[in-house]
Amino acid sequence: MPLLLAPEQAIALDRLLAEANVFGVDCKPVPGSGNPLIRGLGSLSGACPEQISFLSNPKLQEQLLGCRAAAVIITPAVWEEQLKGRDIPFVPVLCSEPYLMYALLAQWFDRHRIEKLPKGIHPTAVIAESAQIGDGVSIGPHCVIEEGVRIGEGSRLGPGCVIGAGSSLGKDCLLHARVTLYHGVTVGDRAILHSGCVLGADGFGFAPDPRGQGGWAKIAQLGGVLIGDDVEIGANTTVDRGALENTVLGNGVKLDNQIMIGHNCQVGDHTAMAACVGVAGSTIIGKRCTLAGAAMTAGHLTIGDDVHISGATAVTSSILKPGRYTGVFPFSGHSDWQRNAAVLPQLGALRRRVRALERQLQESGDAESCQTPSQ
Amino acid sequence: MPLLLAPEQAIALDRLLAEANVFGVDCKPVPGSGNPLIRGLGSLSGACPEQISFLSNPKLQEQLLGCRAAAVIITPAVWEEQLKGRDIPFVPVLCSEPYLMYALLAQWFDRHRIEKLPKGIHPTAVIAESAQIGDGVSIGPHCVIEEGVRIGEGSRLGPGCVIGAGSSLGKDCLLHARVTLYHGVTVGDRAILHSGCVLGADGFGFAPDPRGQGGWAKIAQLGGVLIGDDVEIGANTTVDRGALENTVLGNGVKLDNQIMIGHNCQVGDHTAMAACVGVAGSTIIGKRCTLAGAAMTAGHLTIGDDVHISGATAVTSSILKPGRYTGVFPFSGHSDWQRNAAVLPQLGALRRRVRALERQLQESGDAESCQTPSQ
Amino acid sequence: MPLLLAPEQAIALDRLLAEANVFGVDCKPVPGSGNPLIRGLGSLSGACPEQISFLSNPKLQEQLLGCRAAAVIITPAVWEEQLKGRDIPFVPVLCSEPYLMYALLAQWFDRHRIEKLPKGIHPTAVIAESAQIGDGVSIGPHCVIEEGVRIGEGSRLGPGCVIGAGSSLGKDCLLHARVTLYHGVTVGDRAILHSGCVLGADGFGFAPDPRGQGGWAKIAQLGGVLIGDDVEIGANTTVDRGALENTVLGNGVKLDNQIMIGHNCQVGDHTAMAACVGVAGSTIIGKRCTLAGAAMTAGHLTIGDDVHISGATAVTSSILKPGRYTGVFPFSGHSDWQRNAAVLPQLGALRRRVRALERQLQESGDAESCQTPSQ
Repeated sequence: MPLLLAPEQAIALDRLLAEANVFGVDCKPVPGSGNPLIRGLGSLSGACPEQISFLSNPKLQEQLLGCRAAAVIITPAVWEEQLKGRDIPFVPVLCSEPYLMYALLAQWFDRHRIEKLPKGIHPTAVIAESAQIGDGVSIGPHCVIEEGVRIGEGSRLGPGCVIGAGSSLGKDCLLHARVTLYHGVTVGDRAILHSGCVLGADGFGFAPDPRGQGGWAKIAQLGGVLIGDDVEIGANTTVDRGALENTVLGNGVKLDNQIMIGHNCQVGDHTAMAACVGVAGSTIIGKRCTLAGAAMTAGHLTIGDDVHISGATAVTSSILKPGRYTGVFPFSGHSDWQRNAAVLPQLGALRRRVRALERQLQESGDAESCQTPSQ
Repeated sequence: MPLLLAPEQAIALDRLLAEANVFGVDCKPVPGSGNPLIRGLGSLSGACPEQISFLSNPKLQEQLLGCRAAAVIITPAVWEEQLKGRDIPFVPVLCSEPYLMYALLAQWFDRHRIEKLPKGIHPTAVIAESAQIGDGVSIGPHCVIEEGVRIGEGSRLGPGCVIGAGSSLGKDCLLHARVTLYHGVTVGDRAILHSGCVLGADGFGFAPDPRGQGGWAKIAQLGGVLIGDDVEIGANTTVDRGALENTVLGNGVKLDNQIMIGHNCQVGDHTAMAACVGVAGSTIIGKRCTLAGAAMTAGHLTIGDDVHISGATAVTSSILKPGRYTGVFPFSGHSDWQRNAAVLPQLGALRRRVRALERQLQESGDAESCQTPSQ
Repeated sequence: MPLLLAPEQAIALDRLLAEANVFGVDCKPVPGSGNPLIRGLGSLSGACPEQISFLSNPKLQEQLLGCRAAAVIITPAVWEEQLKGRDIPFVPVLCSEPYLMYALLAQWFDRHRIEKLPKGIHPTAVIAESAQIGDGVSIGPHCVIEEGVRIGEGSRLGPGCVIGAGSSLGKDCLLHARVTLYHGVTVGDRAILHSGCVLGADGFGFAPDPRGQGGWAKIAQLGGVLIGDDVEIGANTTVDRGALENTVLGNGVKLDNQIMIGHNCQVGDHTAMAACVGVAGSTIIGKRCTLAGAAMTAGHLTIGDDVHISGATAVTSSILKPGRYTGVFPFSGHSDWQRNAAVLPQLGALRRRVRALERQLQESGDAESCQTPSQ
């Protein structure tokens, strides 16, 4: 990939570390090892001489000495045990948490990119008079901001976003192109919303219509969506509005792409879901849970705090105890699968046959020797 | 949630019931119990004193006496058996079908909201000269209406909708923001289409390309999409156009979010599908079916009327008999799952072992005693 | 469906075949059988007298003699064995590969439609000054083309597309309405991108945030997306940008609707995926693979060339050997499923019980007769 900064934008290592390290992680170059100019961030194997890199996965340790980066973030232990006293071609940066520091450096480079994007309100945006737009808000071309909307200071909306009547965004939100909020959706500060996500579409509610032959009467969805601070929502993810109350996502919730959150759900703080997860209506999920890709939950369940659902698992009943839960049919070669899957419709019968064998052997054992068979 | 009507918009209970009850459901307040002003609709536990509520789920019956709503819809039986003669703080409204009446009231409040939205054709909409736009149609900012489109009277398009050449919408349709119809898509009356849904994208059809190494020749999709009346389609759902004929959704079909309907499918009247369902191409689904969340069907199947598919079930062959069908791997704690799933690749072998035991015991029984073993 | 060409546009069979047959497939009418005017393409059973049809699926052979089309594409074998010497109502067109010829004819009719669409750059499109727009490019209403974008000659963008800063499209691409490319996305020649697809949204990467209670620090995604030539991407499909390197789709890759490709994935040439497939991050998929609908793969896997994954299968480990792989719980009537699924949590125990029976029978056999039990 190309370098992220033009040559004239190159930043000295010490200044980069100081600006990026917003968490105050313990992180500094080995004294006297230099202060190179940095223009990007690369992997150990892919970094070029004007980039900074990092070692966090011990499996990649062997790539360290071949790394061409100008500086590499490592733990003090790696320094002491492997590099100290050797002739190394990069500036070693000692850090208690290289992976976190990598995240902070990546954020720095991305902020740098975003700050250079066009600012202000594009003339093609359609903004209702009653909308309250905070200071420093950027609104891209062809956005539509309806009546009564509030957008907090410093928020940035990409092209083609639609914010429905009475909805609100907090401060410093980043909406990529073509994000849709229906009316009555409240989003907290620092949200990152990706293209194609839809917040506040109608929940799926119908009453049987007694007039017709199997028809349905729509239950109009009168609740809204309430989203906390520091939430990220992926591309083409949908979060439906509540029937009467709000659908709620807590602080720090992270949703990947193409996730579906049904109406009236509540998702606890810091819970993260990978792509293609579906959560059916009225299910309550606790804090710090993870749902791996393509996991699904039925509706009206309660899932407690610190529950971890494996990928492609269908959760059909509540889970109150923390831990990891799984339900996946193991894949195999197709003909092996056919052979084994063919037994599934007979599993109940198979168990009965085993029971019958056990009884039979017990009886024959009893009859023969009056001994209890070994079990 | 906030009240749905401003104080000056409050509506008297009798008028609200009369206006909302478009089905003529049997529904009236107990005589002499008052005619309070209503400003919203709430759940039994959440309603505030200016709202109307309802009891339809018997499990919530114990919340009834603590309900703070101004009026509550109940069945005559609940009135007779539990409330009559007691001092109750709300107006009891007796109704043969409280859940349906709740749906109708919710519709009334939502209609009230929609009627207040901006009307007319926004100047930023781009509308082809040959398009036929019915009376009372509203078209939002940045919509694009291509050549030969017809839009029936009273329909309303939110911001950023695109209606492709020659497509048509019936009367009184409601398209939320950013709905896309390709060319050659026909939608009936009273459709509700949610943001991000795409009707008429190309079906997935390729012929092996004999020139290349594994390449594919696109089969351009020349059919269209034909959708009946009273259909609702959820956010980010996709319905592909047919290869040569139309993909067809019958009257009253209800599709939730992120559903995929492949090319050439036919879905019968009043069939409803919950979120994340996938129906592969050329499958025919009957009337009044339900597919629960994340159910999937293979292509070229026939599913008859009144078939109900459980969530997360993969349907791999046709189903002609009404009833409920399921195929889900039951989830469990991860280590339990590991233990049990490890047996699956040996199921065929396990069955053979049981057979062998049965034979062996049969033979030894025969040999020893000439008796038939108990079974 | 209506005929694709107006009466005055009807094209003679010989000219249609010549223009459509861009692959030079062996294909010609039986001499002396006529040269009818053609206005469309239909199925054997649905074609009307001004259409051309084809027979490729042997199961449909019985429909041949009732076909009302003006011309039908058949193999020489069908001609020799079934039609020659008979009085047939259509012009027989002999072709070595009728299905491929059908694809080429369908392409011809669709090209005809597309060539009639409005050309040029719509005045409502917002195009950055630094964008490089090739000759003959069409850009629809309300598109947004950001700084530094390059669009190759002959490409066509439908309404509402957004091309992020520095991204590029090759020649002769077709973007339907509302396609989104983030910044730093490179697409090759002749791509077909469907509505609602999002290329280059952030991959899902977070580091545990040591400050908070279970919080996450975003790993900004600095890589891009790199897409080869002749790629088709379906409606509402998402391909995330890489963390540090690019996410890569090879030449000729075909993705259906609502597919999710995670960050850092690599998909080999000519691999095709049906709708609703999910590929988690950093997984590498070989050439000429197929993933059927709703198949899922875990992250960080390697799947070799010529691997075929069945629908609804979750791939949880690498697959290096070509072949077909499956893992689906077979569906059945709900109560049958309940009975059989109830055994799954006891499979490990069931196997132990069978082992115990085998041991017991072995021991009793040994004790009784010093004979090895039959197995």
